[in-house]
Amino acid sequence: MKYISLLGASGSIGTQTLDVIRSHPDEFRLVAMAIGKNIEVGRAIIEEFAPELVSVADESARMRLHSEYKGKVKIVCGEEGLIEVATHPKATIVVNAVVGSLGLVPTLKAIEAKKTIALANKETLVTAGHIVTEAAKKNEVALLPVDSEHSAIFQCLQGEQSKHIEKIILTASGGSFRDKTREQLENVTVEEALRHPNWSMGAKITIDSATMMNKGLEVIEAHWLFHLPYEQIDVLLHRESIIHSLVQFRDSSVIAQLGTPDMRVPIQYALTYPDRLELSNAKPLNLAEIGTLHFQKVDFTRYRCLQLAYEVGKAGGSLPTVLNAANEEAVEAFLQGRIAFLAIEEYIERALEHHQMVKEPTLDEIRKIDADTRHYVRSLLT
Amino acid sequence: MKYISLLGASGSIGTQTLDVIRSHPDEFRLVAMAIGKNIEVGRAIIEEFAPELVSVADESARMRLHSEYKGKVKIVCGEEGLIEVATHPKATIVVNAVVGSLGLVPTLKAIEAKKTIALANKETLVTAGHIVTEAAKKNEVALLPVDSEHSAIFQCLQGEQSKHIEKIILTASGGSFRDKTREQLENVTVEEALRHPNWSMGAKITIDSATMMNKGLEVIEAHWLFHLPYEQIDVLLHRESIIHSLVQFRDSSVIAQLGTPDMRVPIQYALTYPDRLELSNAKPLNLAEIGTLHFQKVDFTRYRCLQLAYEVGKAGGSLPTVLNAANEEAVEAFLQGRIAFLAIEEYIERALEHHQMVKEPTLDEIRKIDADTRHYVRSLLT
Repeated sequence: MKYISLLGASGSIGTQTLDVIRSHPDEFRLVAMAIGKNIEVGRAIIEEFAPELVSVADESARMRLHSEYKGKVKIVCGEEGLIEVATHPKATIVVNAVVGSLGLVPTLKAIEAKKTIALANKETLVTAGHIVTEAAKKNEVALLPVDSEHSAIFQCLQGEQSKHIEKIILTASGGSFRDKTREQLENVTVEEALRHPNWSMGAKITIDSATMMNKGLEVIEAHWLFHLPYEQIDVLLHRESIIHSLVQFRDSSVIAQLGTPDMRVPIQYALTYPDRLELSNAKPLNLAEIGTLHFQKVDFTRYRCLQLAYEVGKAGGSLPTVLNAANEEAVEAFLQGRIAFLAIEEYIERALEHHQMVKEPTLDEIRKIDADTRHYVRSLLT
Repeated sequence: MKYISLLGASGSIGTQTLDVIRSHPDEFRLVAMAIGKNIEVGRAIIEEFAPELVSVADESARMRLHSEYKGKVKIVCGEEGLIEVATHPKATIVVNAVVGSLGLVPTLKAIEAKKTIALANKETLVTAGHIVTEAAKKNEVALLPVDSEHSAIFQCLQGEQSKHIEKIILTASGGSFRDKTREQLENVTVEEALRHPNWSMGAKITIDSATMMNKGLEVIEAHWLFHLPYEQIDVLLHRESIIHSLVQFRDSSVIAQLGTPDMRVPIQYALTYPDRLELSNAKPLNLAEIGTLHFQKVDFTRYRCLQLAYEVGKAGGSLPTVLNAANEEAVEAFLQGRIAFLAIEEYIERALEHHQMVKEPTLDEIRKIDADTRHYVRSLLT
């Protein structure tokens, strides 16, 4: 039996993690979980999974659940609450599926508490890759990827030696606007941006797919997860999202992981690793039915955010924190209809230009740079 | 340093094995090799690689080389010679790249001598899979596949547990006649049949690709190599031969091995396993350049030989020996222009009908059944 703490239980990855736990009651038990402000969802999860500890966004939400579950479930809140969930004494695996840079400190605390980390929160590695990987190494803790691309790479690397890697190739569907030219992107709407062709995901990540910042963040994440220089990380356009990523070895042999797009596969793999369990209601891959797979070079002019991410990743230091925070704010502004789609990359570039790079930022510096960047981007919006 | 005995040094796989040995002089040394009747090639190999032992097809060829290399290279011949090469005391790996059922006994002797076996000779497992796998198990000897499809499966299974396999999927290019209907196959010529779209291989295997008997033999080989029932072995048409094969696991995750068609990759992998070395003059896979990969269901009516192989494999016993021997004779007759292309399957079916199945044939029975089948097919030709 594996005991699971789940951060971000009400989001897309959180919900699918609960699906996996539900379908393997003899393997997994939810001992603690954190949600945001959605009390309804929290209540439903408590009723079904009976966790011992629940964290919510703020004190008012905490008070409401506390009065309902007094004596049965411990209810906590805020960042302290998140950390309490991430370090629950019974938990063996912490699934970090919160959205945004909120996931960083709880992840570090979970690592210090020697928990295995299933990481869906890419901002954790993007903003503090050097600190998180160092902590994981020091505490001998495994960082298991939950992103479909990184899980694919991770699966391809089983039984292989990393010194034999020539390069890894992250596939990208191209997002909701892949068939549009840069000119056509001028006037796209939020609704159009939210229509991802292959994956059903949260709003933030769907916009990040449309700008390809998502792939950019994944490149930086891959750099830290697999200890590879950026020169050994490629991106390949593949519209069907069937090949989730590939590894090319030095003998020119390529290993790839494929499947019908279903986030439960990488989630479950992180939970069962190194084992594999049956996936309930799976739609097995049928390549004959799909018929054709397409591949295309990435145009870095067309996908400016991806280019930015490579530049920022290579420069390192505090720049990825600025990239990520500025992107979160700009995407939020776009989702609120306050800025145009192409303004997202513009705001990120302005935030990067405005920033004075710090070479090896501490956790406190990262948090300050994150806050300062958000403040700066917001100031541009008013 | 790995010391290599190479059976079938002058054939297509043999020549490419020598390429691999040549490009890694610090890793590999050829200690013994067997060729057929091609004395010229034998001489060239002796001059370049200076093996200690060479076996040739017959006594007259042996005499000629013996007089030239007296005191320098020991020259032997016939099946005894093959066995001497296969069991050379210095050899750590025996590469069996002979064509046809000639490879069986030397392989068994090499297994008994505790050599690691790199197996390109699929007839060995097809005709005597139960004996060969049993011997390998008893002698704790590894059977490493050299066929591109089986090497692909083998690479995909690294770091995985076989109990997690849902099925393996062998890809098939469809051979030189894949765009022809059954009716159009009536009058095809030997020259047309020998034009394989993706791979440059020997004549026998190129014809086997056109009839898809090659894939059928591979299915039977996979059954023995990976200890899987036929229900867990699928074939998928994939015209580009870029995905060399796939494994689907029980969580619906699929791992595949890909690459530019180049037999040196599986050959070298068998020699370096579990390591990987650089491949000289490799043409790395460029999916963006290839652009599109196609997949299609196999039509078992169109490819009657593949259907026969599944039936024969499932029935087991001595039937695969008959299938293989009848196929070798029929292909030979086709190559000599004595029978039509579609007659190949007809002769195989007649040989199968004529045969009285033996359940668990001994090695002697297999050899007799092999000879009887050849005799019978030849009798039909006159």
